[in-house]
Amino acid sequence: MLVILKSESTREEHERIMERVEQAGGRAELHVPKESVIVINGCTPSLLDEIGLLPGVASVRHNTGGQWLSSRERQPEDTVVEIRGCCIGGDAPPVLMAGPCAVESRDQVFQIAEHAKRAGASFLRGGAFKPRTNPYSFQGLGEQGLELLSEVRDRLGLRIVTELRDVSTLDLFIKHEIDMIQIGARNMQNYEMLRLVGRSGVPVMLKRNPACGIAEWLQAAEYIMLEGNSQVVLCERGVTAARGSRTRYMLDLAAVPIVKEMSHLPLVVDPSHAAGDRKWVPALARAAVAAGAAGLLIEVHHAADEALCDGPQSISPATLHELVSGLRALGQMPSRQYVQARRAKFKLIESRS
Amino acid sequence: MLVILKSESTREEHERIMERVEQAGGRAELHVPKESVIVINGCTPSLLDEIGLLPGVASVRHNTGGQWLSSRERQPEDTVVEIRGCCIGGDAPPVLMAGPCAVESRDQVFQIAEHAKRAGASFLRGGAFKPRTNPYSFQGLGEQGLELLSEVRDRLGLRIVTELRDVSTLDLFIKHEIDMIQIGARNMQNYEMLRLVGRSGVPVMLKRNPACGIAEWLQAAEYIMLEGNSQVVLCERGVTAARGSRTRYMLDLAAVPIVKEMSHLPLVVDPSHAAGDRKWVPALARAAVAAGAAGLLIEVHHAADEALCDGPQSISPATLHELVSGLRALGQMPSRQYVQARRAKFKLIESRS
Amino acid sequence: MLVILKSESTREEHERIMERVEQAGGRAELHVPKESVIVINGCTPSLLDEIGLLPGVASVRHNTGGQWLSSRERQPEDTVVEIRGCCIGGDAPPVLMAGPCAVESRDQVFQIAEHAKRAGASFLRGGAFKPRTNPYSFQGLGEQGLELLSEVRDRLGLRIVTELRDVSTLDLFIKHEIDMIQIGARNMQNYEMLRLVGRSGVPVMLKRNPACGIAEWLQAAEYIMLEGNSQVVLCERGVTAARGSRTRYMLDLAAVPIVKEMSHLPLVVDPSHAAGDRKWVPALARAAVAAGAAGLLIEVHHAADEALCDGPQSISPATLHELVSGLRALGQMPSRQYVQARRAKFKLIESRS
Amino acid sequence: MLVILKSESTREEHERIMERVEQAGGRAELHVPKESVIVINGCTPSLLDEIGLLPGVASVRHNTGGQWLSSRERQPEDTVVEIRGCCIGGDAPPVLMAGPCAVESRDQVFQIAEHAKRAGASFLRGGAFKPRTNPYSFQGLGEQGLELLSEVRDRLGLRIVTELRDVSTLDLFIKHEIDMIQIGARNMQNYEMLRLVGRSGVPVMLKRNPACGIAEWLQAAEYIMLEGNSQVVLCERGVTAARGSRTRYMLDLAAVPIVKEMSHLPLVVDPSHAAGDRKWVPALARAAVAAGAAGLLIEVHHAADEALCDGPQSISPATLHELVSGLRALGQMPSRQYVQARRAKFKLIESRS
Repeated sequence: MLVILKSESTREEHERIMERVEQAGGRAELHVPKESVIVINGCTPSLLDEIGLLPGVASVRHNTGGQWLSSRERQPEDTVVEIRGCCIGGDAPPVLMAGPCAVESRDQVFQIAEHAKRAGASFLRGGAFKPRTNPYSFQGLGEQGLELLSEVRDRLGLRIVTELRDVSTLDLFIKHEIDMIQIGARNMQNYEMLRLVGRSGVPVMLKRNPACGIAEWLQAAEYIMLEGNSQVVLCERGVTAARGSRTRYMLDLAAVPIVKEMSHLPLVVDPSHAAGDRKWVPALARAAVAAGAAGLLIEVHHAADEALCDGPQSISPATLHELVSGLRALGQMPSRQYVQARRAKFKLIESRS
Repeated sequence: MLVILKSESTREEHERIMERVEQAGGRAELHVPKESVIVINGCTPSLLDEIGLLPGVASVRHNTGGQWLSSRERQPEDTVVEIRGCCIGGDAPPVLMAGPCAVESRDQVFQIAEHAKRAGASFLRGGAFKPRTNPYSFQGLGEQGLELLSEVRDRLGLRIVTELRDVSTLDLFIKHEIDMIQIGARNMQNYEMLRLVGRSGVPVMLKRNPACGIAEWLQAAEYIMLEGNSQVVLCERGVTAARGSRTRYMLDLAAVPIVKEMSHLPLVVDPSHAAGDRKWVPALARAAVAAGAAGLLIEVHHAADEALCDGPQSISPATLHELVSGLRALGQMPSRQYVQARRAKFKLIESRS
Repeated sequence: MLVILKSESTREEHERIMERVEQAGGRAELHVPKESVIVINGCTPSLLDEIGLLPGVASVRHNTGGQWLSSRERQPEDTVVEIRGCCIGGDAPPVLMAGPCAVESRDQVFQIAEHAKRAGASFLRGGAFKPRTNPYSFQGLGEQGLELLSEVRDRLGLRIVTELRDVSTLDLFIKHEIDMIQIGARNMQNYEMLRLVGRSGVPVMLKRNPACGIAEWLQAAEYIMLEGNSQVVLCERGVTAARGSRTRYMLDLAAVPIVKEMSHLPLVVDPSHAAGDRKWVPALARAAVAAGAAGLLIEVHHAADEALCDGPQSISPATLHELVSGLRALGQMPSRQYVQARRAKFKLIESRS
Repeated sequence: MLVILKSESTREEHERIMERVEQAGGRAELHVPKESVIVINGCTPSLLDEIGLLPGVASVRHNTGGQWLSSRERQPEDTVVEIRGCCIGGDAPPVLMAGPCAVESRDQVFQIAEHAKRAGASFLRGGAFKPRTNPYSFQGLGEQGLELLSEVRDRLGLRIVTELRDVSTLDLFIKHEIDMIQIGARNMQNYEMLRLVGRSGVPVMLKRNPACGIAEWLQAAEYIMLEGNSQVVLCERGVTAARGSRTRYMLDLAAVPIVKEMSHLPLVVDPSHAAGDRKWVPALARAAVAAGAAGLLIEVHHAADEALCDGPQSISPATLHELVSGLRALGQMPSRQYVQARRAKFKLIESRS
C-alpha cells in the first residue's frame, strides 16, 4: 500500500503517520523520490482510512498494480534523462549506444570506440564485469575494464554505459564515474541491486528479463525510483523465443508503444541480443526506430570473429555506418553528434530504510 | 527425396524414371511447377544414385530441408506477385491491404472500402467465411460475402483478398474471381487445402501459424508451389505470446530479413492480429515497413465498437490515413495508388498426382 | 448465441423460433446433439429476450465462452466413450493405445501390433495418411494403410485409431470401419473437418494444437459435438516449447485436472510427441497416469532406427512392456486386456445445416 | 577452459600451472571443490597443449559446455544431499518440504509447521525475506522471520529451507543455522549470490528460472560447486507459459528424466508455483513423484484466503494430508518421518579467488 504525501508535508507529519502504522502492528517505510511517499504493510483497511485523514497525506493507494512513480498517471509528461548534454526520451532524436559486448583490451576498445564515435554514437557500451551463463567463459577484465572505459570517455568524449554484475562492485562504478549503469536481463529482479543502484543516483539502463512482462519490468523500475533515482532508461532486448526460432530471442517491439502508454520513462532497444546474428540486426534496428524507440543499443566489433563474447551478433563498423546513414536519410537520426561528455560526480546516497 | 529434371527433359524420360522407382518398390510423383520435379519415397540410396544417371535428370536432392522451390538457392531473384497491375515483392513499394475483419453488410463493406481506397489501399481485405474459435460466434456471410466483395472490386477497382476456410468452397472463390486467397493461420498446415489452392493457380496469401517456425512456414509454401502455383505471398501475423502479454500475439519482425535470406517469396505483415489492440497497430505497422516488409495487411472499421469480429484491433479510417501519410512523408509508401483492377479468370487445374 | 431447447420441444416450435430470428434479419441454425439447440447470430438483445419466452425454449445463453455441450455445467457426470467393449473415461482404468507413427508394411504393422497387444494395448495407433511438414517426406501408404489396419483389427482384435489428414478421405475411414478417427494437432482448428467428423458419428480423438490454450481446444470439441457426435476423446501432446528446450514440445500435465474441471470429456496423453526422444517417454507416461489421464497414446517400433517417421521418439516393445508392468505393480493399469473388438458400422449423417 | 588436476597433485604444481598461464597473458583461478580444478581464460590452444603436459594435470577440457562438476560424466553415481539425517536424491524416497509462502507471525508459522509435520514433511519451507515483483507488497518479516523458523526447527525438529533474497543477509542465514538456502527463480543467474552461497557450504536449493533451459540451470549449479559446495538440490517450478494459460507457469516434468541423465544432482519439484491455483497442485504433485522427483516443495496454509502472499496456490493441511496418504498407498512415500533435525554449524568459507 502506498501513502502519497503532500509536497508541503513536514518531517513531523511523516513521523506521525509512521508511528500510527507501527502502533497498529503494521510496517511503514519512508521513501523520498521527487516527492515523499510512505510504503505500508500489514494494515487493516480501517487503519488505512484513518491514515488518509492525517495531516500531510495527499492520498492513499490500496492498489497501485506495483506502479506509481513510473506511471503516466503520476507524471503525464515524458521523463528526459540527460547525461552530460545528451538527452534520452521525450522529443529528443534517437540516441546511439554502440560498442563491443566485452572490453577485451585497450587496443580493441579504442578501435571500436573511434568507429562508434564516427558513426554518430553518443555512448560507448562495453562490459567489464560480464555475467556469463558458462562459468568457464571469459568473465570480463574487471576493474581494469572500467579503467579502460574511463579512458575512452576522457579521450574521446563518449559517455559510458556498462553492466553491474555484482552489488559488491558498485563503488568501483562510482569511483570510475560510469555515466549509466546497465542492469542486465538476469538481474532485472535482483531487488538488492535495484535498491542500491536507486540510492547511487547514477542513471540506470534497466534491461527487460526475457521471461518478464511489461508490468513486471516497470515494477522493477519502481524499485529504483523508490530510492530517489528517477534517471531510469528501459531497454527492450527480446523475450523467450519458441523452439526452432532462428533468432536468439524474440524482439517485442510492441513494448515501445505500450511502455509509452503506461510510463513516462524512455525506452531504448537492443536488436543485437534479440537477433543473436548480425545479419538481422540492421532490419530490427530500423524497425525499432520506426516504432518510436528513444535509442539503440548495438554491439559492434571490428573483428567480430575473434571476439571473446557475442561475436556472432556484433555488426561491423561499416554496417553500423550504413545503418546510421540510412536512418539519417529518413530524418530519423540527427547528424549532429552528442559527444561532449565531461566528468560528473555521484556518490552512494545513505540508505533511508 | 527430390529429383530435379532438366528443362529439356521429355515426357518419356519422366516416365522411365518413375517406372524405375516403382519397379524397385518406391513411390514417385511428378510435379510440374515452373520446371518439372519428381518427388520420390521409399528408395534405397543405391537406387537414387542410379536414377541420378538416367537421361533427363538434372540432379537428385537427398536432403532438401523441405524447401527447394521456394528457396533462394533455386531462384536468387525475388518473386514479384503481380495482381492486376499491382506488384508485391522485389523492388515494388509496400502494398497496402486494408479492410474489415469480416464482411458484415453492403453498407459496411462499401463504407470501409471507400476509406481504404482513399487512404491508398490497393487491396480490400475482408472475410466472408470466418473461421471462429467459438462456434457460437458470427461465422461470416458466406457466399453473400463473396458477392459483396466482388461488387466492391467491380465498382471501386480494389483487388480482393479473403480467407478460404473450407476446401469445399474453393470453387466459389474462383467463380467470384477473388484476386488472392488467404490461407489463415489455423490452416497453414492443412495440406489438403495447400494442394488444392496450389492447383487453382489463384495467388495465395499464406499466413504463419503462431506455433510454427519460419522453416515450417516455408515448407507449407512448398506444398502450394509443388502443384504449380508460384504466386505465393507470405504473411507474418505474430507468434504465441507469453502469459501476461498485453498483445494478442508477439509480432516476429525478424521474420522479414530471415525470410528474405531463405526465400525469394514476398512477405507482408499483419500488425492488427499481432497487436490485438488498435492502439499499438500504427507503431507496429511503421516498424514492419522499416524492417522491409513488402506490404501491410490492416484491419480497419468505421465503427469498430460495433464490429461483429475483431473490433478492438481495428483502427479507424482516420488512423489509417494518418499512418499512410506518415509513411509517405518518409518516402516509404508511394502516393500513386494501384487501383485499376480488372477481372481475371482462374480455373481449377486438373490434379496430376 | 445459443438457444437451449426443452427436451419435449417440438419440430414446430423449433421452426417458429428460427423463423422469428430470420424475420428480424438474424441467422439461426438447428443442431441436434443429445438435446436440440439453436445457434443464433445477428440478433439484437431485445429479440433474444423475446425468443427466451417462446414455447420450446429452455434457456438462452448470451455468453457461453464457446463451451456448452462439452461443459461440466451442462453434464456433471463424466462421458465414457465405449468402443467395442473398451471404456475411456469415467472410472475406467487408463487405456493403452500403442503402435507405430506410420503404417509402413504388413510385416511392420503386424509385428508391432502383436507386441502392443501382448503389452496390454486395447488400441493400435498408426498413420495411413501422414500430414508431414516436409513435402518430400514419406506421406503414408494411403488407403493401403487403412486396409492393413483393418486386417490387424480383424485378426488381432485390437481397436484402431488413425489420423484423418484430408476431409476428402473420410469415406475411406468409414468404409474400413476405423474405430476412432484422430484429428491431429495441425487440424485442431480445421472447422470443416471438425464438422464432418461430427456428422460421421465415429468416435474422435482430438489432439491439442501446440499453440492453443485449453479453452480453444474445448471449443474445437464443441464443433464436433454440435453435429451430434459426443464420442470425443481429448489428447494432450505438448505445447510450444522454448528455444533451447531438449524436448520437442512441453507436455502440459496441468491440462489433466483442468480439463476434468471444465469438461466431462475424457482426456488421454501422448508422451511420445511431447518428448521427441524415447528416453524420456516412460517417465512422462507414468506422470500422465499419476495426474489422472484416461489413457496413454504411445509410439512403439520394433526397429525404431529404420522407422520412416518419428523413429527417435518411438520406444521399443521391451520398454513398453516394462512401463506397463510398472503401472500394473502400482495398480494403475489393469492386467485384464480389452481386446475383443468386433466390427461396428458408421455412416455419414446427413448435414442438418 | 578447465584444467582438471590429479588428486595427488600438489600446491606447488598448481602454482606452477597458474604462473605459466599468467606469464602468457592469460588468467587462471584455482577452485577446490572435491578435487581441484583450474579455470583458465585468454590462453592460446598451443599454451593449453603445453599445460596439459605439466605435472599435476589430469586433463584439459576445451569445451565443457559449462558443465563439469555437476555432470554424470564426472560423477556417475547420484549425489545424495543429507541434511541432519534426511537424505535427498539417490535411492531415498521422495522428501516432503511444505509450509507457507511467507512467515507471517509466530502463530501462523507454528500452526502450519505442525500440520506439515503431521502430514510427513521433513522440511518446513517459508520465506522471511520475500522477493516481490510489486514493491508495495509484503516483503517478509526479515530477520524476525528467520528467528521464528529457527524456533520451529528447535521445537518441532523440522529442517528449514528459506530463500536468500539479498547477498547482504547471508550471515543472518548462517547465524540462524538455516538448513538449506533457497535461491529463487529470479536469482538463478545472480552469479554473485551463487558464488557466495557456494563458499558458505550450506546446502542449497536452486530453483529454475522460468526463461532458462536445463543447460543454463545446470551451469548455475556449476557456479556453486566451483566454490566447493556440492550440496546442491535442483528445484523445477515451471517455465514461461503461453498467453491464455490458466496455470501461472508450465511445469516441465521432462526435466526430471533429463536432469537425471545429465547430472548426478537431486531434483525436487514445486507444483505450487507452477499451478498458481491450489486446485491443480495435487495432480501435479502426484505426477512429479511418478516421474521420479526426489522430493516435493509445496505451499500450505491453514487460512489461505488471508495469506499475505501466494494464498491462491496454497493447499489446505487437509489436502496435504490426503495427497501424502495417496502417495503412501502407492508405496511412493514412506510412512516413517525424517523429523529429527539437530542443529548444525556452517560458516562462510574464505574466498579463494
